Amino acid sequence: MSPTPVTFTPPDQPASYSWEATNEEVAARYGVPLESIVRFDLNTAAAPPPLAQAVMTVGRFDMPLSEYPPADYRRLIGAAAERYGVDTDELVVGAGADEILDIIVKVFLSEGSSAVVPVPTYAMFRVLTEQRGARVAAVPRLGAAEGYALDLPAVRAAARDAGLVWLCSPNNPTALPEPDGAIQALLGQIAADAASAGREPPVVVVDEAYAEFAGRSLNGLRFEHPNLITIRTASKAYGLAGLRVGFAIARPELVARMNPFRPPGSVSNVSVTVVTEALLDSTLAADNVARITAERQRLTDGLTGAGWSVGPSTTNFLLVDFGSAERASAVAEGLLQRGLVPRAFPGTHPLADHLRLTVRDEAQDDRLIAAAREIEAG
Amino acid sequence: MSPTPVTFTPPDQPASYSWEATNEEVAARYGVPLESIVRFDLNTAAAPPPLAQAVMTVGRFDMPLSEYPPADYRRLIGAAAERYGVDTDELVVGAGADEILDIIVKVFLSEGSSAVVPVPTYAMFRVLTEQRGARVAAVPRLGAAEGYALDLPAVRAAARDAGLVWLCSPNNPTALPEPDGAIQALLGQIAADAASAGREPPVVVVDEAYAEFAGRSLNGLRFEHPNLITIRTASKAYGLAGLRVGFAIARPELVARMNPFRPPGSVSNVSVTVVTEALLDSTLAADNVARITAERQRLTDGLTGAGWSVGPSTTNFLLVDFGSAERASAVAEGLLQRGLVPRAFPGTHPLADHLRLTVRDEAQDDRLIAAAREIEAG
Repeated sequence: MSPTPVTFTPPDQPASYSWEATNEEVAARYGVPLESIVRFDLNTAAAPPPLAQAVMTVGRFDMPLSEYPPADYRRLIGAAAERYGVDTDELVVGAGADEILDIIVKVFLSEGSSAVVPVPTYAMFRVLTEQRGARVAAVPRLGAAEGYALDLPAVRAAARDAGLVWLCSPNNPTALPEPDGAIQALLGQIAADAASAGREPPVVVVDEAYAEFAGRSLNGLRFEHPNLITIRTASKAYGLAGLRVGFAIARPELVARMNPFRPPGSVSNVSVTVVTEALLDSTLAADNVARITAERQRLTDGLTGAGWSVGPSTTNFLLVDFGSAERASAVAEGLLQRGLVPRAFPGTHPLADHLRLTVRDEAQDDRLIAAAREIEAG
Repeated sequence: MSPTPVTFTPPDQPASYSWEATNEEVAARYGVPLESIVRFDLNTAAAPPPLAQAVMTVGRFDMPLSEYPPADYRRLIGAAAERYGVDTDELVVGAGADEILDIIVKVFLSEGSSAVVPVPTYAMFRVLTEQRGARVAAVPRLGAAEGYALDLPAVRAAARDAGLVWLCSPNNPTALPEPDGAIQALLGQIAADAASAGREPPVVVVDEAYAEFAGRSLNGLRFEHPNLITIRTASKAYGLAGLRVGFAIARPELVARMNPFRPPGSVSNVSVTVVTEALLDSTLAADNVARITAERQRLTDGLTGAGWSVGPSTTNFLLVDFGSAERASAVAEGLLQRGLVPRAFPGTHPLADHLRLTVRDEAQDDRLIAAAREIEAG
């Protein structure tokens, strides 16, 4: 993957999210039993933490299910502030990180403005930017040998005209964080360029959905760079994707700009209470991360042993290089025929010759390893 | 309330939702015990249906809590289609009706376009229109003597330049549906005007959050008027506001335009499953409506007996006329001092001399009636 010039997509044909096939659709298409299907394509956990069912069985929520969620999400924000080491006025709650991204485009983009998207990355950055009527300035990342790192000079240059810069670290789907200091340096360069031009710097978003797996967050940079928003989620390290809770972390001035665009209460009372308890649990995420980190090594070893070329990862997923889009596509078909759903990339995607595979639990991952062996034995 | 000319609000200062005080804030400000507070301001039910806790205790959801919601909300849409008497390709699911409204502004409004809002009505119509960068063409409703009905000629005239028309029937906060045939006639006039001008008619949204209480829906008009979107919710007749589930009903052509703007999965797996079961229950909503309708009469009688001027209602709330904004404000204070939270309207609002009060259960409503007597006794 060699860097190519920045490309712009006109906003008159906004992208939309490509829905994953449902379990039912996969079962019908591949003739596999519904209960045998495992999602290796969504970077979700094999099971939710037991705490979730315990809270629901007790049935005491922050508000009864007949009432709207608490307008200030007080306990949830308190728990998140403690967990992430920030103040309560530095948080915005959303129905998953996706709603946080949507609030961000509403506040910081308008028709005719542009947002920098280093690609490949999380698909919703482009979708939401274009749906807001803004342009995407797509900047290719460096290649696999450089860990798919940001092309810093190109991102810096593109940021000069932009209202927003979308980063994701560790990056999805490339599985690695930016090199130490890279985003801090970029923030400094962007600030300097804006100062030279006599304008406010663009808002820089760092989606940290996988931060717990990398063991670090960049949210401490918000004091030096108050144009920084970091994003966290209950969907990955907490194993609660189905509850749809995400957070923005930013200085109070940015939070105050985002809050008027926050829906009156999009997170269900059940989600509010369960995620509050999960965040207050001092070991839940750390235990999950430890388990998944060990399992990631085991899965990597198993797939490598089967002959697959597995890249390094500091996340709960692996990126596997099959050398050609045809081979990646054939392997995807082989997996689907066994009820194992990989994330494949369309033919035009820079990772069309790769598959992305979630690290799940031992039993499910053993099925994946066995499938890899069978497919390679072909 | 006499009709005044249509007013436009510039979009450079978008409105935002005014957050209700939380229970904790009311308790602290008025020195009342937290557990004594009753929300008469949110048109919510006194308790959720027992089915909700039963489903959660069993703990079998459409997808595990660790997985994202089903991309097609298949069972939820199937249940809603059956309940509302529409086809499955005529539905869009949202995290509450509010997310449906947000999807609508994304699809049908853009910077510089305008939306007709007959006022007073649900606050989010204005908020979301302005946050999309579009203009609000506010058309005053007729007065109390006319049941706060639409000023049909004025709405028709304003719709000539609009991309969207926001209706709500029964209307919140005025508690009555439009007169029989009024919206059908308006749809016909709007279609005729658009045809004369050689353009597509604006999309007409009818928020039917309270339709179950009125015993009828206008969704059957979608065949004659494919520019019609009706909106339903689990928050009112189903008593499940805290689960955040709402629906748009429209012809497949409009649904196909809305779906690309639907977030990948904003409704939690718990909400998906509980609301599916609630919609499949053939008597749940009807029983709630029967109970609330009887209780509404009892509450109306009680408040009238206390000397209050209670308007007619086909919803789960009452609009009470206090004759002056000062008196309405004083009564609101008296209620809040007793832990009973009314919906008051700001001084500039056409209903500043009214309070809106939710019909809840006998015990809670008895506290409201007793408070009304005490306040009137001075």
